[in-house]
Amino acid sequence: MAQQYPHGHVETDSELEAFYRDLEAMSTTALWRVLTQQITDEPQPRAVPFLWKYRRIRPLVLRAGELVTPEQANRRVVVLVNPGLKSECYASSTLLANIQLVLPGEIAPAHRHSAAALRFIIEGNGGYTAVDGEKTVMRPGDLVLTPNWTWHDHGNPTDGPMIWQDGLDVPLVNALDASFFEPYPGMQQAYTRPVDLSTEQYRQGGLRPAWERWTKPYSPLLNYAWQQTREALERMSKGAPGTPWDGITMEYVNPHTGGPIMPTIGAHAQLLRAGEHTQAHRHTMDVVYQVVEGRGFTIINGVRFDWEPHDVFVIPKWAFHEHVNASATDAACLFSYNDQPVMQSLGLYREEELVENDGYQEVTGAFTPL
Amino acid sequence: MAQQYPHGHVETDSELEAFYRDLEAMSTTALWRVLTQQITDEPQPRAVPFLWKYRRIRPLVLRAGELVTPEQANRRVVVLVNPGLKSECYASSTLLANIQLVLPGEIAPAHRHSAAALRFIIEGNGGYTAVDGEKTVMRPGDLVLTPNWTWHDHGNPTDGPMIWQDGLDVPLVNALDASFFEPYPGMQQAYTRPVDLSTEQYRQGGLRPAWERWTKPYSPLLNYAWQQTREALERMSKGAPGTPWDGITMEYVNPHTGGPIMPTIGAHAQLLRAGEHTQAHRHTMDVVYQVVEGRGFTIINGVRFDWEPHDVFVIPKWAFHEHVNASATDAACLFSYNDQPVMQSLGLYREEELVENDGYQEVTGAFTPL
Amino acid sequence: MAQQYPHGHVETDSELEAFYRDLEAMSTTALWRVLTQQITDEPQPRAVPFLWKYRRIRPLVLRAGELVTPEQANRRVVVLVNPGLKSECYASSTLLANIQLVLPGEIAPAHRHSAAALRFIIEGNGGYTAVDGEKTVMRPGDLVLTPNWTWHDHGNPTDGPMIWQDGLDVPLVNALDASFFEPYPGMQQAYTRPVDLSTEQYRQGGLRPAWERWTKPYSPLLNYAWQQTREALERMSKGAPGTPWDGITMEYVNPHTGGPIMPTIGAHAQLLRAGEHTQAHRHTMDVVYQVVEGRGFTIINGVRFDWEPHDVFVIPKWAFHEHVNASATDAACLFSYNDQPVMQSLGLYREEELVENDGYQEVTGAFTPL
Amino acid sequence: MAQQYPHGHVETDSELEAFYRDLEAMSTTALWRVLTQQITDEPQPRAVPFLWKYRRIRPLVLRAGELVTPEQANRRVVVLVNPGLKSECYASSTLLANIQLVLPGEIAPAHRHSAAALRFIIEGNGGYTAVDGEKTVMRPGDLVLTPNWTWHDHGNPTDGPMIWQDGLDVPLVNALDASFFEPYPGMQQAYTRPVDLSTEQYRQGGLRPAWERWTKPYSPLLNYAWQQTREALERMSKGAPGTPWDGITMEYVNPHTGGPIMPTIGAHAQLLRAGEHTQAHRHTMDVVYQVVEGRGFTIINGVRFDWEPHDVFVIPKWAFHEHVNASATDAACLFSYNDQPVMQSLGLYREEELVENDGYQEVTGAFTPL
Repeated sequence: MAQQYPHGHVETDSELEAFYRDLEAMSTTALWRVLTQQITDEPQPRAVPFLWKYRRIRPLVLRAGELVTPEQANRRVVVLVNPGLKSECYASSTLLANIQLVLPGEIAPAHRHSAAALRFIIEGNGGYTAVDGEKTVMRPGDLVLTPNWTWHDHGNPTDGPMIWQDGLDVPLVNALDASFFEPYPGMQQAYTRPVDLSTEQYRQGGLRPAWERWTKPYSPLLNYAWQQTREALERMSKGAPGTPWDGITMEYVNPHTGGPIMPTIGAHAQLLRAGEHTQAHRHTMDVVYQVVEGRGFTIINGVRFDWEPHDVFVIPKWAFHEHVNASATDAACLFSYNDQPVMQSLGLYREEELVENDGYQEVTGAFTPL
Repeated sequence: MAQQYPHGHVETDSELEAFYRDLEAMSTTALWRVLTQQITDEPQPRAVPFLWKYRRIRPLVLRAGELVTPEQANRRVVVLVNPGLKSECYASSTLLANIQLVLPGEIAPAHRHSAAALRFIIEGNGGYTAVDGEKTVMRPGDLVLTPNWTWHDHGNPTDGPMIWQDGLDVPLVNALDASFFEPYPGMQQAYTRPVDLSTEQYRQGGLRPAWERWTKPYSPLLNYAWQQTREALERMSKGAPGTPWDGITMEYVNPHTGGPIMPTIGAHAQLLRAGEHTQAHRHTMDVVYQVVEGRGFTIINGVRFDWEPHDVFVIPKWAFHEHVNASATDAACLFSYNDQPVMQSLGLYREEELVENDGYQEVTGAFTPL
Repeated sequence: MAQQYPHGHVETDSELEAFYRDLEAMSTTALWRVLTQQITDEPQPRAVPFLWKYRRIRPLVLRAGELVTPEQANRRVVVLVNPGLKSECYASSTLLANIQLVLPGEIAPAHRHSAAALRFIIEGNGGYTAVDGEKTVMRPGDLVLTPNWTWHDHGNPTDGPMIWQDGLDVPLVNALDASFFEPYPGMQQAYTRPVDLSTEQYRQGGLRPAWERWTKPYSPLLNYAWQQTREALERMSKGAPGTPWDGITMEYVNPHTGGPIMPTIGAHAQLLRAGEHTQAHRHTMDVVYQVVEGRGFTIINGVRFDWEPHDVFVIPKWAFHEHVNASATDAACLFSYNDQPVMQSLGLYREEELVENDGYQEVTGAFTPL
Repeated sequence: MAQQYPHGHVETDSELEAFYRDLEAMSTTALWRVLTQQITDEPQPRAVPFLWKYRRIRPLVLRAGELVTPEQANRRVVVLVNPGLKSECYASSTLLANIQLVLPGEIAPAHRHSAAALRFIIEGNGGYTAVDGEKTVMRPGDLVLTPNWTWHDHGNPTDGPMIWQDGLDVPLVNALDASFFEPYPGMQQAYTRPVDLSTEQYRQGGLRPAWERWTKPYSPLLNYAWQQTREALERMSKGAPGTPWDGITMEYVNPHTGGPIMPTIGAHAQLLRAGEHTQAHRHTMDVVYQVVEGRGFTIINGVRFDWEPHDVFVIPKWAFHEHVNASATDAACLFSYNDQPVMQSLGLYREEELVENDGYQEVTGAFTPL
């Protein structure tokens, strides 16, 4: 026998109204008044699916370069604001998606914070990030980590602008009241290790430098170089099975554990083969995408989001989504990051594939970018 | 050389104002306008330290028993609302602290949800909770678990009211957009195992039933009986060292891992020896306390919160706190639960002891309860 | 198509004989000459199933008490020698099963070794073992651990003999060339902790003392007291399912991990209900049994081994076995220890249940004890 | 006060002799008669340091090719026999070091066994090993895994001999009575995956194919290609610190865990920079070395063992050793495998560096190879 009102149902009357006032006077309330808000049948994210066109954002980023310096701004960064999270200025419930600019000759001063960050390079070749004494040189497509509480600074000794995406877990850290920040005593930290040592040490799969004792809860790899990632995707596209929902997808991992790069943020590199149209699924993770190469679209909850290189888009939790590479001849590549490690650690991760219509959504509209 | 403005400093002018409008039009903003809100030097919880007197709450709980039934209300529960989290009706940033009433003959109907819950029994002797086919009989001080997505219902076949505290991770689950809820097809689930089997199987420390294959991410123990917990505290109070900050404190654990009872909620039972005054520390976890026996006070960020049996109080993250047993002759016992497992899984847990004044805070005021 | 000679087959001739001599001259040999010895289709233990009657061993143990002191002998111990392992004087391929005697007023001097040991008390009440600064009082049926490289000494301040079984992993440690031994500078170590602190701290299932930081690879529990183990078995015998092959069996575990007590030795306490006759299985672990109470028999590879209290018997790897409690009215209790943690860590553990004849072996003979 | 006889000391007399006979009659003995054999102060391996010259072994291997076929021999393999382990024909207490030959057109038929194996290729280019449905092509220096209970066969479709070293844990598996063997029903297994898929999937460090669900206790990588290993060593030799005892040493790891390739065998690739002379240490692991390139010597317990390409040498447990690259201009490369994963899982691993003489042993002699 099914319950008639599975969430309960209380008719209000004057006696109850009086009771509710008594409750409020004691800094309490009745659960049945808030139950359906507090416990929903399915996730109801305030964040919405959204996409920012890079060709519209880029001029704003460069304009910021004319208006403020890194020292004035601490970081010269344009924040992508999810319309559903306007009051907080977040890209998703748990993640930020920012665009940072460092101009030739500039330094973004050293500091550290409990929020974890990754950087995915969009433009520029030869700027650097330094983390806990090691420097890495950045090129387009490189993924650079600045984990929780590591000292980091950025510099640009080249003659062109360096532009990259900053992915941070600031919304999560704030929901957990766990933000700490500390400026470094000086603009730049001391460099105590050879440039790119960690990348060199760990870039060969299946080999671990015997002299590294690593016990930190994040990857020792400072830079996952795109050149090698792209080659791996290419190799895989020749015969590996991939997944029905994401094509050829490789997770960036901590080589000491095989697990995610940081305890709060995971990341993937993905190749959609020419003409590939993946099947739809949904999961309890937020994902922020950055298009690396190619053109195509992603259908999110029935709405088509067209994308081209460097566009950024967000898929909130539990939204069905499928990807399409619009080219019949060329591969498309997507970089993405997510809060899956959080959801899995806490036992809250779920996935569900779409079963109707062979796994393809009905398209009900198209997103009109700003 | 220290940086002059460690968080940066941008003077606004009309050009910038125009730029900010352009940014907004593209659903973006400038990081330097929100940086100090988004990344604080230390945690800035909206939740405040707070205490609810049980003798003021109890009449409201019983009054609810006159006004609504469990079937009408789904659960007949009074929610303790932290004044800093009034809009959400949460007790802390990550935890709920509710008081539930089940009257003689009533059943709180079966359902399940992705929010995890624990129950700590305040009054009544002989009501039951059933979880995934096993029933446990509840007595004052018992800790009963209804983990993430387990079917559970409650019943009261006795002739007096059953009152208990409900501790849930609803605020966390909502911050992560991960709420799922499902009613059971019927009031009560089928009971497929002997009553209290799990408690019997695991109550002896150091012995594991060889026939149990347990792979779930939470404790198999449905009920941690207070009688045995209290005896353990008593034994420990005779010679064990305890900790400087919490006295004789024992963590409720998953016997299969030695780790916390659930991935999102930890719990402790604590005995303050006669006259004991602990030292102050702070940590990045929310803690909700329920007083089990004795009288005393807790100093939170310099403010004294007096407590007596069944009072509930909340210590938000990063607030200094120390405990005092006001009796020179009798022990005091506290039950508490927290979000420490979350903070540790995500690499965000920190502790700091107060060093000044031998570890004791200066008392600057006293909390006046409602 | 099946291979004709799955292990190969080489006919010897004079040319080959010459070749074999050439090989030997280079300190080599031909694999095909030793292959079937080195790689067998199934385990071929040199150890045999065996049983020692306690009433025959006990007089020898007491006689040793008249002939040597602990200081002369280091440990006054009678070694049970498996007839298949006579040259090494081992009870099984990986385990020792010794009987130790400490007379009133004696002390077995402090030392430590890389071999791990457990003690299961047979007779005497009030002797002690001390491990790394903590002392425990021993009573019949208690399981006491002296793990790898812990300082330990034994003493008997009572007026009767203390007799116990010593279970050690000496054969394993020697097969791995890993024996270290060090005498303590003095007869007895200093006692730095309250007597039986660890037992008190961990005897309540599901509670962990918050002040213990334990990172060692073995259980912190020094003594698993029989009184509580027996009570747990009794409770379990009322309704828990048990296993088809061992009845009500509980594993002694490390409360910090839920795993085995030591990395090289596991242990179980087992209750056979009145009249219980378990089904047969076999596994890749050596097991040494000590009968605690009751009478019955165990059928090992078709041979019946009758046992009564304090008899010791050994089941080598891959031997089918089933247990029978010969009493129609009383429970029988067995203690046992094994090398299962080794086999599981190394990926070499297997189990197989007997399927023929409803899981019961055909009995082809009875063991005649010495 | 130090104990006078730390291991005890019992003078024999006729009474004791009679007692010893009584003990023996009951299949027992007195511990004090065997104690110093069973528990030594330090490891006393029967295995000795030893070296086999490849130029002396190679002709024997080829001669075997004239005398027996793989089908006759099952595997056409020359076993390197440690003079200390002559009766068992083992290379060390836990490891085998064999040389296998597969001639053009031959197939070593498919089978599986609980002993784990690795293959390190010495000569030949283009033979294959197949493991559980995947085939890998073998080139000199490649490390190929055939873990515990995987189906495997080898073939040589080239026009030259394939010669490789087989490293197995047979002595360990036998000490544990855990040998199982099964022939495949047919010469070759079915190939169900693309050739070298695993190598392609995991060769890029820090990237994990999202479609692989891997739960087995060994590495998914079938072949660790030497070309890439050698490049990694070269890169590391430019600036990485290495270790004082082994120079630039990289451990072959399971990319899913960062841990050893198999639960019972670990492996390393090592580069000694031109002129490098490492410091001495000792540890509780057996190591079998295979020289890949360069010339030099290793001093083991004071004795100098000169080596050149493809020589094989064994360092038993707890023997001090240091390595010297005899060339002032070229690097030397060594491959080695060991039982360290076993020793670490079981809590028996220890290391000790030589402190006297700045960490360099006094050389007391030189090994004369057969």
